[in-house]
Amino acid sequence: MRLVTYRADILAAARLGAIVDHQVVDLALLAAQRGQSLPADMLDFIDLGPQAVRSTTELLASFEGRFPDGTSWPLANVKLLAPIPRPRKNLFGIGLNYVEHVAESARTLDTSKELPKQPVIFSKPPTTVIGPGDAIEHNAKITQQLDWEIELGVVIGTRAKRVAVEQALHHVFGYTVIIDMSARDCRRAGQWIYSKGQDTYAPMGPCIVTADEIPDPQVLDLSLTVNGITKQSSNTRHMLFKVDELIADLSAGITLEPGDIIATGTPDGVGAGRSPQEWVWPGDVIEGQVQGIGRLRHPVVAV
Amino acid sequence: MRLVTYRADILAAARLGAIVDHQVVDLALLAAQRGQSLPADMLDFIDLGPQAVRSTTELLASFEGRFPDGTSWPLANVKLLAPIPRPRKNLFGIGLNYVEHVAESARTLDTSKELPKQPVIFSKPPTTVIGPGDAIEHNAKITQQLDWEIELGVVIGTRAKRVAVEQALHHVFGYTVIIDMSARDCRRAGQWIYSKGQDTYAPMGPCIVTADEIPDPQVLDLSLTVNGITKQSSNTRHMLFKVDELIADLSAGITLEPGDIIATGTPDGVGAGRSPQEWVWPGDVIEGQVQGIGRLRHPVVAV
Repeated sequence: MRLVTYRADILAAARLGAIVDHQVVDLALLAAQRGQSLPADMLDFIDLGPQAVRSTTELLASFEGRFPDGTSWPLANVKLLAPIPRPRKNLFGIGLNYVEHVAESARTLDTSKELPKQPVIFSKPPTTVIGPGDAIEHNAKITQQLDWEIELGVVIGTRAKRVAVEQALHHVFGYTVIIDMSARDCRRAGQWIYSKGQDTYAPMGPCIVTADEIPDPQVLDLSLTVNGITKQSSNTRHMLFKVDELIADLSAGITLEPGDIIATGTPDGVGAGRSPQEWVWPGDVIEGQVQGIGRLRHPVVAV
Repeated sequence: MRLVTYRADILAAARLGAIVDHQVVDLALLAAQRGQSLPADMLDFIDLGPQAVRSTTELLASFEGRFPDGTSWPLANVKLLAPIPRPRKNLFGIGLNYVEHVAESARTLDTSKELPKQPVIFSKPPTTVIGPGDAIEHNAKITQQLDWEIELGVVIGTRAKRVAVEQALHHVFGYTVIIDMSARDCRRAGQWIYSKGQDTYAPMGPCIVTADEIPDPQVLDLSLTVNGITKQSSNTRHMLFKVDELIADLSAGITLEPGDIIATGTPDGVGAGRSPQEWVWPGDVIEGQVQGIGRLRHPVVAV
């Protein structure tokens, strides 16, 4: 399934939906048609566990593309929010997780040129999250070096504590696209949270593709453009630490919980790594995509 | 008020209480006695805003220490949890915020000996939080350098975005005690979240003292012992960046929200800074306190 959180004019609150063809189907309303019950919130749905993904997939299929009036809307008529508009904790971010990006960072961002021996972890507060099309804030009082990073996002489905690499992917609910905005000049004594953690610095979406539809997360093209010019283009096969290794490593010390989000790192081609360096400014438009998931498009605006 | 989250045998769920003399008074049950309504959850109470603190203080005082049967329990008969058992996002932590600790860290932890020009920020996931008396986990597969840091914790009461230093303390709900456990050998390419973010690494409590009772947070003694031997002893006047400056700085880029928690940094005397270095091990007991708030006592256990 391609799950979204959406808002339609007719419904006040943001709700859980699935994209089928070019429609958004409201899962709670659809389930009610069959006397069943599904939540209207993505995190509540994730909490139901893997069985809910299977039964909801069957429910959707049973309508054979013809959904009752009042349960679906044309995709063009709704506003998509971030699939998890308000995560329950900071997003986990992974730094220096693509070989070429390690090299460019060492040249320009005073990180080591050695490949990290273990995943490099940081975090982004829930207040960084914005949905498709929302504006990325550029505060010139704080940064003159606002940079882009396209990333595969992993959404955890079930609690993971000290899981083996071989079991790790069983804990994945699905995948999304995250742009990890980074104000390079806001690092503080080497810590990244203030450079990566400011409001609007985590565009996310447009949907979560459930894990059953992406059996191998390490074969996905991902790319990013600024004002239509390609800046990053790579494939998740180039990750240093694969998704299963990241989950196993994190969960050795930090319990992962349903709804947790991991931004798995970015390939080369960020602004800091270019010669001369490039940054985004108000008026610029950033587009990022991951194969099989979707595309995000975000204007940069002054605040 | 001295607010706690507590569990009594007679009540299944954790609930909001206030400590009066040596009793825990249940605020929701007490309010009901007067036909009023108060939430049973600390975060819900914080969300009510400053007026709720004032009116609840008056409500408590109106009983003149004689609370109706079934609304209070002897403190010794309840289990105190962390006052906010499940924060809505990662705790913000501040590194290198006491002059002497900057010096000891530079000697032993490859940080700079220069005083930081801006606050050094990191985070600790909600899964780090444990309540008074709970065990701190020592996982020898991951760390051989588990260290202590006693800190004043600040709980945000109202939304703060780009607030001036002069207005910053108006956004504080109250203060608590946090021990910022740190596995020094789990830093990853300079990032601290894995060293400070593992499960059980944020003992918190025993209560939140509301801000009206601590007009100046920069005059508080704080200290920590390991197995009864004093390791840290200082005063919050030695903070490099004061509480109001931390709030102003964070809020310039990151919106602070009700219930957010800031661990404001630790003075010198951590294990890493000692000669020879000292670490805690299973069987050790850590006690930390901040003047006017209270004391935490935690055993270290093997996992």
